[in-house]
Amino acid sequence: MPQLRLSDEEYLRRRRTILERLGERGITGLIAFGPNNVSYFSRFGFIATERPIAYILTRDTSALLVPRLELEHAETFALVDRVTAYPEYPGERHPMEFLKDILVDLGLSRAKIGVDSDGYGRIYGYRGPRVSELLPDAEVITVVDDIEYMQMINSEEELALIRESARWGNLAHTYLQEYCKVGVSETEISMRASYEATQAMIRTLGPEYRPMSWGRAGAHAGFRGQIGKDSAFPHAMTSNARLKPGDVLVTGAGASVWGYGSELERTMIMGEPTPEQERYFNLMLEAQTLALNTIKPGIPCSAVDKEVMRFFKEHNLEENWRHHTGHAKSTLVHEAPFLDVGDHRLIEVGMVFTVEPGIYVPGLGGFRHSDTVAVTPDGIEMITYYPRDLESLTIPI
Amino acid sequence: MPQLRLSDEEYLRRRRTILERLGERGITGLIAFGPNNVSYFSRFGFIATERPIAYILTRDTSALLVPRLELEHAETFALVDRVTAYPEYPGERHPMEFLKDILVDLGLSRAKIGVDSDGYGRIYGYRGPRVSELLPDAEVITVVDDIEYMQMINSEEELALIRESARWGNLAHTYLQEYCKVGVSETEISMRASYEATQAMIRTLGPEYRPMSWGRAGAHAGFRGQIGKDSAFPHAMTSNARLKPGDVLVTGAGASVWGYGSELERTMIMGEPTPEQERYFNLMLEAQTLALNTIKPGIPCSAVDKEVMRFFKEHNLEENWRHHTGHAKSTLVHEAPFLDVGDHRLIEVGMVFTVEPGIYVPGLGGFRHSDTVAVTPDGIEMITYYPRDLESLTIPI
Repeated sequence: MPQLRLSDEEYLRRRRTILERLGERGITGLIAFGPNNVSYFSRFGFIATERPIAYILTRDTSALLVPRLELEHAETFALVDRVTAYPEYPGERHPMEFLKDILVDLGLSRAKIGVDSDGYGRIYGYRGPRVSELLPDAEVITVVDDIEYMQMINSEEELALIRESARWGNLAHTYLQEYCKVGVSETEISMRASYEATQAMIRTLGPEYRPMSWGRAGAHAGFRGQIGKDSAFPHAMTSNARLKPGDVLVTGAGASVWGYGSELERTMIMGEPTPEQERYFNLMLEAQTLALNTIKPGIPCSAVDKEVMRFFKEHNLEENWRHHTGHAKSTLVHEAPFLDVGDHRLIEVGMVFTVEPGIYVPGLGGFRHSDTVAVTPDGIEMITYYPRDLESLTIPI
Repeated sequence: MPQLRLSDEEYLRRRRTILERLGERGITGLIAFGPNNVSYFSRFGFIATERPIAYILTRDTSALLVPRLELEHAETFALVDRVTAYPEYPGERHPMEFLKDILVDLGLSRAKIGVDSDGYGRIYGYRGPRVSELLPDAEVITVVDDIEYMQMINSEEELALIRESARWGNLAHTYLQEYCKVGVSETEISMRASYEATQAMIRTLGPEYRPMSWGRAGAHAGFRGQIGKDSAFPHAMTSNARLKPGDVLVTGAGASVWGYGSELERTMIMGEPTPEQERYFNLMLEAQTLALNTIKPGIPCSAVDKEVMRFFKEHNLEENWRHHTGHAKSTLVHEAPFLDVGDHRLIEVGMVFTVEPGIYVPGLGGFRHSDTVAVTPDGIEMITYYPRDLESLTIPI
């Protein structure tokens, strides 16, 4: 039976770790507002809105503050000692006043408190006070770097979810490639492939499967507008283009499993590649292979990107460079650290990265594969496994 | 031919308005970082990441700062005088240093500058300085309320896009209802309905149609986990449940048109409703009708919610109350102002609201319709138009 969720022990381990890290600095309480951070510690997956949700952790207890509409939902799914609800946002009394009540009740009014941010973010028209304004006698310290660092290092359980995601992203991409035909729109191909893969996925995994993601249940594959000349925009938006002979396509696929994802992107060519297309494709492949071979624990993230930059320079591709080599990837679309010349954090075992150097040629198209890899003591484990070579990615027309 | 985009004049009008509003307070420059705000003034739709994008407006010029990967994309789509690119985030030089160069170049180092937020938000691991740190001699004033107020009042062009969205949400919901069968999973029904509606939509609207939305191209309809007993969680997450006889379902549908959306939600019953289901359904319908009849320009948002709260009290439904009556709606999922007892802003012509009081009964289900309405001089225009009565929403099994 595939692993489809994190164990309770995993969540408890996270709490012990953060308490220990913060305890060393005399910090006795933690408040997390970032939706991803709340889920990380509490197991509660939810739709983030203008209604603040806060997770509170001390050595003795854990608590969630939620709007009334999330009370039963949180009580059912969150792994916390207590859930408290405020009526609404904005409401007649501000939600942060209810948070203050909890913090005072927990004896934190004059404590050293770690926060992921000093107040709730400005989501959908939310306005409100900072924690440091609520508790003027407390010492409020931003500890988002500590939380983020923990999130960078994936446990075996987390890796299993990312691998499960990659499997279904691979299926969605297989359908995507199969459905690519001249004259068909990207939206049609993408939705059909995502639909077919998701049907297979939910039947294979059964009712235990939970995407834990609002936007993306199941598997998905698509193009996001990177069709033909527009594939030269690394972040195009869906334009609903129809495929033409000679188009360069840049794809993307993945799947949500308990909130974890993976990233698979491929460059495909509609019909026999021109010599120019073949040249850029193979240079891109070489750059990606170079990056994959460079990643290992103990070196800075920047070292990987520097190698790729050197490759671009060596092959006179500087005009075709648009972005760094990759980013960390687990529960969000992008995460830190970045495989970027300016990111000097050290690569560690358990980090998961996308590896996706791209070559962009205005008027011709974009050339980018993205693979998701986990860092191992010896180098990397390839988590995504779709074919990377040009022959496999040429669509007969 | 349907209207599928905003005119350039619309964007120019927005700029004149904000410059005028800020000018009254001696503010001579505007910087917007919020992705939605950048798009609002610049016409540039993009995928927001850890790489900051900033829109700068003065009386003389407009500019966009983008990461290198968005340069050609922004040059093609943005309605600005100039686009400047920084290499990457984090990069060897921080993106905010490039912003500082532009601001200095525009003579804003000692100016009164309006910002939507004092620095770029913490998206996907971004860290960086505030504008007030970059330009210590400038006076940096948060003007997000001014921008938000402008966004609340929809022009005729904006209303046309919201109406177009509602049309396709209606089709997606029609398919959704048609595909509801005992034993079929929510994911299957939802994806099939969204697929069919989107196919019809893109063929009807043709290549001019642009969703201007990363996550949601075309039309969509689904349940988001509100199936059977779980429909009593107002914000459930997709659980991939299969429909059973007697289930209460709460749905949601919409479509993206040039970034504008609409919200349509319905309560449906699988098979002949029980007397209890019928009772709560009709109470919900009555509460929604009451809210719809109350909305008019000149009264505070809170007045609508107070009427609904009074209705809940009168019918002993306070235990079944979970959230306020509705929220504004145009380009985001939720927007201010809120139809909430605590929101005393006045309702104005051109505001668009969802109207969605809900009744939630643990163990039985949730009862909520949501309709999108535009405020007119006389009251409201119903933008969504799917049937609201129980008979139309009972699924034969």
